[in-house]
Amino acid sequence: MNEFDLIQRLVPHLATNAGVVSGAGDDCAVLKPVEPGMYLLFKTDAVVEGVHFTPDTAPEAIGHKALGRCLSDVAAMAGLPLYAVVTLGLPPNFEVPRVEQIYTGLNRLARQHTVAVVGGETVASPERIFLSIALIGKVEMDKCVHRSGAKPGDALFVTGRLGGSLAGRHLDFEPRVTEARWLVEHFPPHAMIDLSDGLAGDLKHLLRASGVGAELLASAIPISRAARQRAKEPSGKTALAAALTDGEDFELLFTLNGAEAVPLLDRWKQRFPDTHLSCIGKITQIPGLRLRTKEGVRTLAENGYVHFA
Amino acid sequence: MNEFDLIQRLVPHLATNAGVVSGAGDDCAVLKPVEPGMYLLFKTDAVVEGVHFTPDTAPEAIGHKALGRCLSDVAAMAGLPLYAVVTLGLPPNFEVPRVEQIYTGLNRLARQHTVAVVGGETVASPERIFLSIALIGKVEMDKCVHRSGAKPGDALFVTGRLGGSLAGRHLDFEPRVTEARWLVEHFPPHAMIDLSDGLAGDLKHLLRASGVGAELLASAIPISRAARQRAKEPSGKTALAAALTDGEDFELLFTLNGAEAVPLLDRWKQRFPDTHLSCIGKITQIPGLRLRTKEGVRTLAENGYVHFA
Repeated sequence: MNEFDLIQRLVPHLATNAGVVSGAGDDCAVLKPVEPGMYLLFKTDAVVEGVHFTPDTAPEAIGHKALGRCLSDVAAMAGLPLYAVVTLGLPPNFEVPRVEQIYTGLNRLARQHTVAVVGGETVASPERIFLSIALIGKVEMDKCVHRSGAKPGDALFVTGRLGGSLAGRHLDFEPRVTEARWLVEHFPPHAMIDLSDGLAGDLKHLLRASGVGAELLASAIPISRAARQRAKEPSGKTALAAALTDGEDFELLFTLNGAEAVPLLDRWKQRFPDTHLSCIGKITQIPGLRLRTKEGVRTLAENGYVHFA
Repeated sequence: MNEFDLIQRLVPHLATNAGVVSGAGDDCAVLKPVEPGMYLLFKTDAVVEGVHFTPDTAPEAIGHKALGRCLSDVAAMAGLPLYAVVTLGLPPNFEVPRVEQIYTGLNRLARQHTVAVVGGETVASPERIFLSIALIGKVEMDKCVHRSGAKPGDALFVTGRLGGSLAGRHLDFEPRVTEARWLVEHFPPHAMIDLSDGLAGDLKHLLRASGVGAELLASAIPISRAARQRAKEPSGKTALAAALTDGEDFELLFTLNGAEAVPLLDRWKQRFPDTHLSCIGKITQIPGLRLRTKEGVRTLAENGYVHFA
């Protein structure tokens, strides 16, 4: 099956929405503009076989993960995702059902978020599959949340439970689009980022962009079951180290006025009873990232990795 | 040098424009919306080492080609390109200067077209470099040109000279953005497509989308010097076959009212004295693609390849 036949087979099943004037099948997709008062959001990301997934990964999960990563980035700006395009690198003699299943996973997640998949290319990639996604979103000009708005005294929150994502969650995570939209309506964050490199690393991006520091409370950091499991293995990281440094959590990390912390936790519990939300520390004027434990306060190393005794 | 250091080095040099609210460095780029009455255009494309360029290709040319392919697609809709994001797949131990030069070529072409490069990712790609670009453009709602508008009786035009692109032009072609914008202002095409798969193949896409056929005049097809050179080689295609079937010309193929053919050719010569424009045939009600030569009219095979005696 050549590229054209494959595309003919995939195009009728692509997720669509009311903004699409014409999708795949012309030189470009043609799309309705966003409403007045909205910014465009634009993001690209890619997953590579052997790096972000393995030859054994369920193909639906590959499509889910590739799109989910971009959705998570749009969520981190408090935006709504709209349109995606896909570049799929395929080795020779690729299996057509596998490619169709990659698209099944991608389309399913797209439909959940009313995202239209409006085009794509397949290219030869001799050794391994890669899947590059670009996503357009929108956000109200006065609601866009950057990394750079954190203020001393802000409370620091994180959704979900962290660490050990590679045990499985990195393939089936739910990007926090709905949660971010609810936040921006009810408790507008000062700064927000999604966790892809690990809590310590991504928090440092946020702190650097905001020109502030932070103190984390070790006992408040929500640790995933997978991270606890792995900590029992002889060579495993401690569970706290995993929660601080494992990548691909795809949770939201955000800051807001300390005074709003308790009302937020209350309201969140009612609105999202199945999704954990934790206040894990505070923003400080003193730069750098510190961790408060029973033993005292220690500085986290610049690379985000900390070796716990 | 790790990914973060590399990005720190590249970001200050990225092409920008007045539409950028915030570019690389946050979870998404934030961009001003397009003016009322405009559609968004959206396109992605990728180039892969060993497929679209070789390890010996000048790195600036890799960046130029990757972006140029997307610009050519925006041109084919008569649009203006605005914002690009980049995903760069890099083998371990990549050479930093080579990556910087890829971006130099990309930024140079972006600046020529006032395109902002607003973000990107680098990912591990163990065996070979790949470069995936996604591009947002805009076009007036009443000026957008699709593949599907060709009408029987239309004259068929192509810019430039065709064939033999792999001898070098595929790496330094100039996407026909300015020409397409001029066309849509002065001689609005009924249908347009850019030539990436070869004249015969891309014309068939246009014919299929429009539900029409075409007759090409063999003697009118503009043949590049590279195609003529290669035809002299013992194993070479004939020059006409090369012009019909070689890929990566990145010229514009379009149709308009037959009555406008002569005025267009006149005005074009004044406006673009250095760029060839050829009327190469006409659109017909009878489906299929035919070639008129001295010996008569023959049908071109479905795969676009024709073996000339």
